[in-house]
Amino acid sequence: MDFSNCWLDYRPMEIKEQALSALSVLCEGEIIESAVKEYQLALSRMTGREPEVFREKTNRCVALYLEPLLPIGKDGYEIKKEKDSYHITGQSESGVLYGVFHFLRLIRTGHMDELPVSNAPEMPLRMMNHWDNMDGTIERGYSGNSFFYENYEILYNERIEQYVRLMASIGINAIVINNVNVHQRETYLITDTYLEQVKQYAALFARYGIQLFTSVNFAAPMELSGFDNCDPLNDKVAQWWKDAVKHIYEVIPEFGGFLVKADSEGRPGPFTYDRTHADGANMLAKALAPYGGIVVWRCFVYNCGQDWRDKKTDRARAAYDNFIALDGQFEDNVILQIKNGPMDFQVREPVSPLFGGLKKTNMILEVEIAQEYTGQQIDLCYLLPMWREILDFDTFSEGEGSTVRQIVKGAQYGQNCCGMAAVINTGNDYNWTGNDLAAANTYGYGRMAMNPSLTSEAIAKEWIELTFGAAVADDLTKILMDSWPTYEKYTSPLGIGWMVTPHYHYGPDVDGYEYDRWGTYHRADRNGLGIDRTPAGTGYTAQYNEPWSAIYADRNLCPEELLLFFHYVRYDEVLKSGKTLIQHIYDTHFEGVEEVEEMIERFDGLQNKLPGDVYDRVRERMERQLENAIEWRDRINTYFYRKSGVPDEKGRKIYE
Amino acid sequence: MDFSNCWLDYRPMEIKEQALSALSVLCEGEIIESAVKEYQLALSRMTGREPEVFREKTNRCVALYLEPLLPIGKDGYEIKKEKDSYHITGQSESGVLYGVFHFLRLIRTGHMDELPVSNAPEMPLRMMNHWDNMDGTIERGYSGNSFFYENYEILYNERIEQYVRLMASIGINAIVINNVNVHQRETYLITDTYLEQVKQYAALFARYGIQLFTSVNFAAPMELSGFDNCDPLNDKVAQWWKDAVKHIYEVIPEFGGFLVKADSEGRPGPFTYDRTHADGANMLAKALAPYGGIVVWRCFVYNCGQDWRDKKTDRARAAYDNFIALDGQFEDNVILQIKNGPMDFQVREPVSPLFGGLKKTNMILEVEIAQEYTGQQIDLCYLLPMWREILDFDTFSEGEGSTVRQIVKGAQYGQNCCGMAAVINTGNDYNWTGNDLAAANTYGYGRMAMNPSLTSEAIAKEWIELTFGAAVADDLTKILMDSWPTYEKYTSPLGIGWMVTPHYHYGPDVDGYEYDRWGTYHRADRNGLGIDRTPAGTGYTAQYNEPWSAIYADRNLCPEELLLFFHYVRYDEVLKSGKTLIQHIYDTHFEGVEEVEEMIERFDGLQNKLPGDVYDRVRERMERQLENAIEWRDRINTYFYRKSGVPDEKGRKIYE
Repeated sequence: MDFSNCWLDYRPMEIKEQALSALSVLCEGEIIESAVKEYQLALSRMTGREPEVFREKTNRCVALYLEPLLPIGKDGYEIKKEKDSYHITGQSESGVLYGVFHFLRLIRTGHMDELPVSNAPEMPLRMMNHWDNMDGTIERGYSGNSFFYENYEILYNERIEQYVRLMASIGINAIVINNVNVHQRETYLITDTYLEQVKQYAALFARYGIQLFTSVNFAAPMELSGFDNCDPLNDKVAQWWKDAVKHIYEVIPEFGGFLVKADSEGRPGPFTYDRTHADGANMLAKALAPYGGIVVWRCFVYNCGQDWRDKKTDRARAAYDNFIALDGQFEDNVILQIKNGPMDFQVREPVSPLFGGLKKTNMILEVEIAQEYTGQQIDLCYLLPMWREILDFDTFSEGEGSTVRQIVKGAQYGQNCCGMAAVINTGNDYNWTGNDLAAANTYGYGRMAMNPSLTSEAIAKEWIELTFGAAVADDLTKILMDSWPTYEKYTSPLGIGWMVTPHYHYGPDVDGYEYDRWGTYHRADRNGLGIDRTPAGTGYTAQYNEPWSAIYADRNLCPEELLLFFHYVRYDEVLKSGKTLIQHIYDTHFEGVEEVEEMIERFDGLQNKLPGDVYDRVRERMERQLENAIEWRDRINTYFYRKSGVPDEKGRKIYE
Repeated sequence: MDFSNCWLDYRPMEIKEQALSALSVLCEGEIIESAVKEYQLALSRMTGREPEVFREKTNRCVALYLEPLLPIGKDGYEIKKEKDSYHITGQSESGVLYGVFHFLRLIRTGHMDELPVSNAPEMPLRMMNHWDNMDGTIERGYSGNSFFYENYEILYNERIEQYVRLMASIGINAIVINNVNVHQRETYLITDTYLEQVKQYAALFARYGIQLFTSVNFAAPMELSGFDNCDPLNDKVAQWWKDAVKHIYEVIPEFGGFLVKADSEGRPGPFTYDRTHADGANMLAKALAPYGGIVVWRCFVYNCGQDWRDKKTDRARAAYDNFIALDGQFEDNVILQIKNGPMDFQVREPVSPLFGGLKKTNMILEVEIAQEYTGQQIDLCYLLPMWREILDFDTFSEGEGSTVRQIVKGAQYGQNCCGMAAVINTGNDYNWTGNDLAAANTYGYGRMAMNPSLTSEAIAKEWIELTFGAAVADDLTKILMDSWPTYEKYTSPLGIGWMVTPHYHYGPDVDGYEYDRWGTYHRADRNGLGIDRTPAGTGYTAQYNEPWSAIYADRNLCPEELLLFFHYVRYDEVLKSGKTLIQHIYDTHFEGVEEVEEMIERFDGLQNKLPGDVYDRVRERMERQLENAIEWRDRINTYFYRKSGVPDEKGRKIYE
């Protein structure tokens, strides 16, 4: 076996309680059977003895019930202890499965005293987006190659099964199996060339309560059937999609639907035909509706051919500008997938104003577990605290309390076709995620989508206890919790973003994107830096509801961590800390490196408490992180020293 | 035929003179037969009639003579008219061939009145280096793919023959058929895997007086025969090479020798075993000597893993530092191939100090016809004027008059294993060189190596008349002659170099290499820019003989076009022109764009005088050049405006 078990690593442990060695299965279904298998597998591994399975009531056991009328919410579950037995009751088959996984977590972490438990997944859709290509590469993948594809073949093996178990255990219920950039061969995924193999995946996923989605090529009728256009209002095009979808559901009745990246970064889309995104999405939605399928339509649409000389165009404005007027025009089975920020998964961005703007449109929040701009699974960056901030952000769309969480869970506007989606960080590396500790983000994403009330810290601790045991929980939790602020310190300051090596997005290159076409500028000159996005500048702040629109536009009210995102600030301006901007830049960059050094020291203390291979792998990444942090520190400090001419107050080494 | 004839395009013309229609061949040899074929082909094409060929004396003819004792120099020739006949006498078979090509040029351009002519090639070796890879790509190729290789096969077709004719017509006598970066498959070029096919090339080359060379992998004994080292002082390694060379000459008796890039940019070499370059080169030289073969050993050796923070290490010093102590240690059949400048083919560099340093070593001057840093055959940049400056540079190695020309022609130290080498700019594009006008560099290189007394202007005019006819000669000559100064104006200023997009080397990226590992920095800050290479800085100036070492080290004496190469200069310092440095930067960049616009206007005037396809191709490149020039202008000006804060005196648009 060339892969680890991650958080499903049921190492041997002493389990005294008799009830756990008998499972009474009082419901039926293929997902129930997965739950049974999970219980058997876990107990066998932990105790060395296979638990007995009864298909009837028995005493001193763990009993599984299915109760669709359980007043708890879709796919919810209850776990309670009554006399000598444990009762796990699911509102659905998936509910039972989730209950079993929860119960196993309690056993594994020694928290059986936390019963009774009553839980339901908060986000209706809890999606994973794979950016896997059929040639076996993964776009923005930092953990090896795809385990789905190799050389345009679809794989099916033990690892796929393990993957699906991992996903189900954290509550994932929808998986998109291919990259949103749909290349030539991937266009065939929805045709007979590959459908039978996709069906195999879909069937496996279904046994674990997960729906399979594919990313589709909007121009598929042209590429596959020689159409001369893919105009969504062309009846023949619409019919082509209807026929294609009909055939998909004939082969795969449990198919989930499509994810679409259209009119973005060179992908085809409705704009070509002067149609709107609503026209495009609705055409696909109508084809999918008869089968209960949905269309997830990405809002990552902007001008990626911007002229750096042009200071009026603002990429941050693009998603809102492109979609706000379409609010209410989308079919019920269309969901707009909105990246958390208006730019692109930077270490710090404001929340996308679309969440506070759209009111009659299904929305899904897209985050990126893959650490494209946040250290590429070399540098440690535990992202849960960032995602929490996003979910907790109050959009004021319907007055106070209209948080992103309320909106994407469907509560704000009474929707159920919404939730969260994430670009996953897995690959065929032994440890799945390149850096062993990066699996905390994979795990945490699912847990948070299930239950956003869990704190980032609690999730970190839970993941650590499951994966490595309680002995390292406190130290590793601290290491994880400190990692995002540390990463932010040694990379780009105060929300300005980028400053990364073009294309690779790892390592510093302050001017790397400064004169390029991507709309990602810092505008640093000898006096200061930052983008004026107030009404006097690009006007982006006006896309927010009050009070945000006023707060962001006001240099003195603007949250400081986003200062340079919204304002051009002089190097000699004083921040709330009493430091000048330039001194803040120097200080944070020196601190960032120091914190990485402290982290390594703390981690070294765990050497004897972690498996040797885990320690070695992580330690090697930490070395590279330290190197990277030093490079960031020195380049950023030198860059701004050369521009500002202001020496460090504390006289530390800044290269000239 | 999917390729043009370039300067051998013998369009129909009226030829009245009776003597030209009879060729009297009074000598023998396979190169003589090539000369005969060339004459027949040219006359047939121009007149529509095949000239009569006599193998005896006849009246009113063109007569070919071979006269080894002709007191004119190796491979020289005389052409004179006597009574009704023309006499072409070669000192060697090649001399006859060169004489015929010269004679045909005179016919073609209507300069028969320039007789008598007496000429001998000035540079002993006139080499072309192909950076073609066997997969069909060309490193730094801007004219399509290789016409030598496709998918690891060696091609042999009409185009190869045309290529060899083109080379011979400009006096090339040595060709290296593969990239100096010898990859895995190319390592087999000197083995039976490919030798029979290489032999086919060598035989064809030989018929045109050209020797075939290959670039070799210094680690070949390891890669081909499983050796665990390639230490040049290891007898077994030396024996491996002796055996390999023996076999090469068994198959290809006319084989020329090896070109070697060792210990450079990641290539293997003697440094690995604590041996010197002399050890490495001499080992190969001894293997080649019995057969008259030679080793061309590149001096492009530097630390390509420099830390940008390190201001002591200076890449410019590297070739001299690495090779000067080895002077006198190389075998007689070793030639050091030295790039014209100490860095890497920038638009402006000082001449490599090695030319003035080495005295007991064969040297060959390497220039780059391929426009890697000079516009990539999109932008026009006629390089002859640059090469002239290099050849005319007085090194003062043995007092005044010790020019690079004297040294590499062998006159300074009485050598005959020396000359010029050039990285060629050809590919399988229809016009061979991407930009039709870039062929002026290909042509000009050969002509200049044959006869450095020819002016750049005369060569340009000759090439234009041969290729397009006299009607466009004046305008195109002006366009060519202005192109290098124009290119220099809109790109990096005053000898500082780089500021290009990393890896691609086309288009501006001021900080693109500034924090990288390549040793190519500009050190611009808010006060000024440039590298201090005086004794107070890196000490590079001390590698020159006096008076250069003093001149370069003196801010006020240093030639201004190299000012930033040798000195850090403040933006407000006044240049000889009376302008400040910053104003000079702004002015040259505005001027550069204006000059491109003027060039296009001038070129447009030729629309009806040039073949339509030529005009269209060149015009399209000029559009791209203008775009490129504007991008350079704006990025450079903005970059330095942001840093300096100094506005343009003339109030022109500089983006903020």
